[in-house]
Formats: sequence, C-alpha cells, structure tokens
Amino acid sequence: MDYIEEIKGLKEQMTFLEDIEFPESVRNIVMAGMGGSGIAGKIFQEIYTKKPVALTDSYSIPDFVNEDTLFIGVSYSGNTEETLAATNLAMKRGARVSAITSGGKLGETVKDAVIIPKGLQPRSAIGYLLNPVLVGAGFDVSNFNETREVLSRMDEDRREFEQIAAEIGQYRKTPVVYGTPPFSTIAYRIKTQFNENSKIISYWSYFPELNHNDTVALENDYRKDEFYFMVLRSSFTSEEVARRIKVTSDLCKIKFREISAEGYSLISQLYSLIHKGDYISYYLAKLRNIDPRDVSIIERLKTELSNVDTNK
Amino acid sequence: MDYIEEIKGLKEQMTFLEDIEFPESVRNIVMAGMGGSGIAGKIFQEIYTKKPVALTDSYSIPDFVNEDTLFIGVSYSGNTEETLAATNLAMKRGARVSAITSGGKLGETVKDAVIIPKGLQPRSAIGYLLNPVLVGAGFDVSNFNETREVLSRMDEDRREFEQIAAEIGQYRKTPVVYGTPPFSTIAYRIKTQFNENSKIISYWSYFPELNHNDTVALENDYRKDEFYFMVLRSSFTSEEVARRIKVTSDLCKIKFREISAEGYSLISQLYSLIHKGDYISYYLAKLRNIDPRDVSIIERLKTELSNVDTNK
Repeated sequence: MDYIEEIKGLKEQMTFLEDIEFPESVRNIVMAGMGGSGIAGKIFQEIYTKKPVALTDSYSIPDFVNEDTLFIGVSYSGNTEETLAATNLAMKRGARVSAITSGGKLGETVKDAVIIPKGLQPRSAIGYLLNPVLVGAGFDVSNFNETREVLSRMDEDRREFEQIAAEIGQYRKTPVVYGTPPFSTIAYRIKTQFNENSKIISYWSYFPELNHNDTVALENDYRKDEFYFMVLRSSFTSEEVARRIKVTSDLCKIKFREISAEGYSLISQLYSLIHKGDYISYYLAKLRNIDPRDVSIIERLKTELSNVDTNK
Repeated sequence: MDYIEEIKGLKEQMTFLEDIEFPESVRNIVMAGMGGSGIAGKIFQEIYTKKPVALTDSYSIPDFVNEDTLFIGVSYSGNTEETLAATNLAMKRGARVSAITSGGKLGETVKDAVIIPKGLQPRSAIGYLLNPVLVGAGFDVSNFNETREVLSRMDEDRREFEQIAAEIGQYRKTPVVYGTPPFSTIAYRIKTQFNENSKIISYWSYFPELNHNDTVALENDYRKDEFYFMVLRSSFTSEEVARRIKVTSDLCKIKFREISAEGYSLISQLYSLIHKGDYISYYLAKLRNIDPRDVSIIERLKTELSNVDTNK
C-alpha cells in the first residue's frame, strides 16, 4: 500500500470500536508503550481524568502496580522489548493485564488482548491503538462517526498541509509544535511524525507551561529565525490560554502558524489535529525527496542492540 | 546576591529538611506547579513509584481528585495564577491540600504549607522546592549529607562546565539534552535552564523513547550540525540503556557529550546533574554577555496578560 493510502486510512479506523474493559474496582491505570504505540497512552493520560493514569516507556513498572491496577501494554508489532518486559512484570504483580497489539509475543502472552489489523506502520495505526481505551473508558461512541466525516473532508482538500510543509522545507527550518490543553500531547505526536516521516529534528512544548521557560528563549535566541513555530488551537482552548498565545506572539515577535482542530467533539478535534500533523510531515518528506514510510534505522538499531557484546 | 552565589547556594538547601506529610491512607498524589516550581513535581513523579503521582501544569485538576488525594501546590512566589487556580479547585474537592512556597497567596490559603526562604529565582530554589516531598515520601535523609559534599566539590572545580558552555556558544549551537531513567526529567530541567539562564532555545528527550522517533531524524536532519547533543549518565543507567546510547551514537554518527552524575545515592546523583545544568547554562549566558538572572520578559508577559482586552 502506498504510504499516503495508509494516512488516508485513518478514517476507516474510526469504525474499529473494540474495547478494553475498564472495571469499576480498578483504582489506577498504567499504560506501557514506546514511540508510535506509546503515544496512545500519552494522549489518553491527558484527556482521561476519572482515575490516575501512569505511563511507562521503559523496561520497568512503578512499585504501586498490583491487583487494583489496570495495566495496558500497547505495542503495534507486539514485539517491542521495553513493553514486553514491563507487561511481564505487571503480570507477576497480579495486575489486571490487557493489551492492544496486532499480534507478536504480546498477543500470545496476554489473554485479553485487543487484536488490531496488521500491515501498517505503527504510527499510521493510531486509531486502532487509541480507540480501544477511549471506548473502554466510556467516551461517547457516536463521536467516532463525526470524526470519520471530519477526517474524510480533510482528505479531500490538503492544500493547507502542503503549504505549511513548503514553508518549513523551503528554508530548511526546524519545526516547533506547541500544544494547548487538552491537546498538549498531540504536539508530541506531531513532533514524532516530523522525526519519522520527514526525517528531521523537531521539538514540542505546550501552553501555559512554555510561558515559564521557552518564552525567555523566544525573545533572545541566536537561531530563532531557523525555527518554524506552530500552535495547536481548538474550541477547547481556554480564554486564558488564547490570551497567552497572543501575548507571547506579540512580546517575542514570533508568528505562530495556527493548526486548528476540526469538528465539534473532543474526539474529532483530537484526531483532526493528529491527521494534520500526519499530512504536513508527509508533504515535507516529499519535498525533501525522502521516503516518508522508511524508518529502517530503527530496525538497524534493534539488530545492532542484539549484537553488542556487553562482556557480561 | 550575585547570581552565581544563588547557584552555589544549592548545597546549603540540602540542610532544609522540612517535610510534607504523606499519610498512609492517601491513594494518589497530585502535584501542581509551573516552570521552575513545576519541575519539582516532574522529577518526583519519575522517582517516586509507591503511589500514582499525577501532575497539573495548567489551571485545572483531574476529576479523580477527592479526599483520598494528597494535593501539593508548588509555587516559589506563591502567586502563580495556574497553581493558585488548581489549588483552590483541590480544596473545594476535599483533597488533603498542602503546599510548598515562600509565601504569597498560596502561603495564605494553605494552612499546612511548607514555607521556604524568599529572595531567590524560583529555579535556584530547586532544593527547597523538591526536598520537602522527598523527605515526606521517605527518601533516606542521610543522603542529603552526601549530596551537600558532592555539590561542594562541584562548586570548587567548574572547568568542565565552562568548557561545555564554550563548545555550545562558540558555534551558536542549539543544545539538546537527552535524559536516561530515572533521570529523564532532569533533561527537561536542564532545557529550561538553557531557556531562562542562557536565553536560547533548547530541547530534550530521553532514552529509550527517543530511539523510536528522534533517531530517525538524527541520521538525516538538514541542520544536524547546528545542534549540540548531551546525554545524562548515572550509575543507575541500565545496561540496556547504556547499549542504546552507544548504538545510537554509532548509527547516527553523532557524538554525545556525556554529563555524568556524581556521588552514590539517587539524591546526590539527581542534584549533581541538576547542578551541572545550572553551571553550563550560567557560563553560556556569560559567554553571550547576557544576564543569566534576568527573566523580566516573564514579568512583562504577566502584566500584558492582565491588560489584554478580551471583549468578553
């Protein structure tokens, strides 16, 4: 499948409504996952506020994990070493363990795993990876219909995304993505898409936190003109944060390119911001004559990791 | 007080052992704080694993906050608007509310507040801001003695820090700080010190997560030579992560400047990494002929925020 078809395929994922069971009795949730799979947990942690959600994106799990914990291992391939290690520890600890995966060792190990379709890049499967927790946690299922329509409309007219990619690539700028609550972590998702699709360095932060540090740099940095600043806006952006965006732009004399969420529901707006990042990073790769799908260095890294002689 | 005296003063903060009470009955902890005060919560969340720790760095608090929650508002000035808003919400929700502050409105509002000395930049008060939660949570108090000695030794010989600052500043590079567990968030602290002290843009990430995204960019980025890459190492860096640092460096042909933790205990190593970041960012400011203490734009921003006419 051509990679742009993978990206366009996000709307189809909105009909995938399998769910992870969220038992009432559970006192906390821990999600494990790395990179394109781990982003599901990072997004969920920001928008789900009924119970504490902790994340692990390493080999270990927190000490508090026990039978009162719902532990969800997320790995598209099912073979991510960090996520497998963490999931095995959670099983030993007696946690209620679930998983979201297309198969692999994780699919074999976890009985209650939600099995999602194979054959995509993990980062293109964000709907499959995230929807099972959204549905399980009680987000309104009817919003996935709206999301499907919103994404379809975006697929039809992609000129804005090509335009932004050109603004970045033409002058070889480094994209900076600033999120706003409740979509701070979408800025991280878009940063990783610039990394993997466009093969360029990109950084992220979020309002209002960045007003306490980045702002000082934005006024004085010696390379300021080499960065391209984007800010994510939505109908959920509070009045206070909207003011902060304006004042920061004025004081630091920086133009923020606004990336606006589409649709009405939280889910539609969330996926629309993700999808805009998908397209912008895709077109930037094309502009650079780089294959956006290729992330073979991650595979080479895994091979090298298993070869390194540690003298142990 | 000259700003370098503020930085050197960190070792004295190691004798400040007032504690936030952590009742057994509490089921989760929520810490609120922004910027130089918020970093205390971010660091604590990574190293404390006995109970779930959630953070808020905005105006709101999670829905799960109730009488089973220990809520800790952290604001050096005591007047940070986001933290005050969040703390007031937590009080209404019946949480067990505590605070760490030098006074201000937060000191007036919260009866059980730990009151810390005034007169510093919030970012120079990291010991005052973090120690009360470390002590309260049961970290070994004797380690603060070791930390004091470790920091004193660092204050005596600062050539390494000047050297690194020169390597960054000489070629006007953008510093990138990569953390390693359990000190991933120290990378964020150092990034913010580059922002506030050196007035330059800086970015951070951490192993092993960055192997799933940044790595692709590190191989191919068009501006790679304009960044300066640092990696935080400690005796807690796992074998797996150490391998990842080596393989990433080899594959991407990037030299990481290692910033090594000093001392034996977790607390010493944590503060030693913080302190190295303090000094490197300080010397980079000096090299740029910039006042490292001045962050007046943050004050100007606050004034502007209260002036903006929102037509509402």
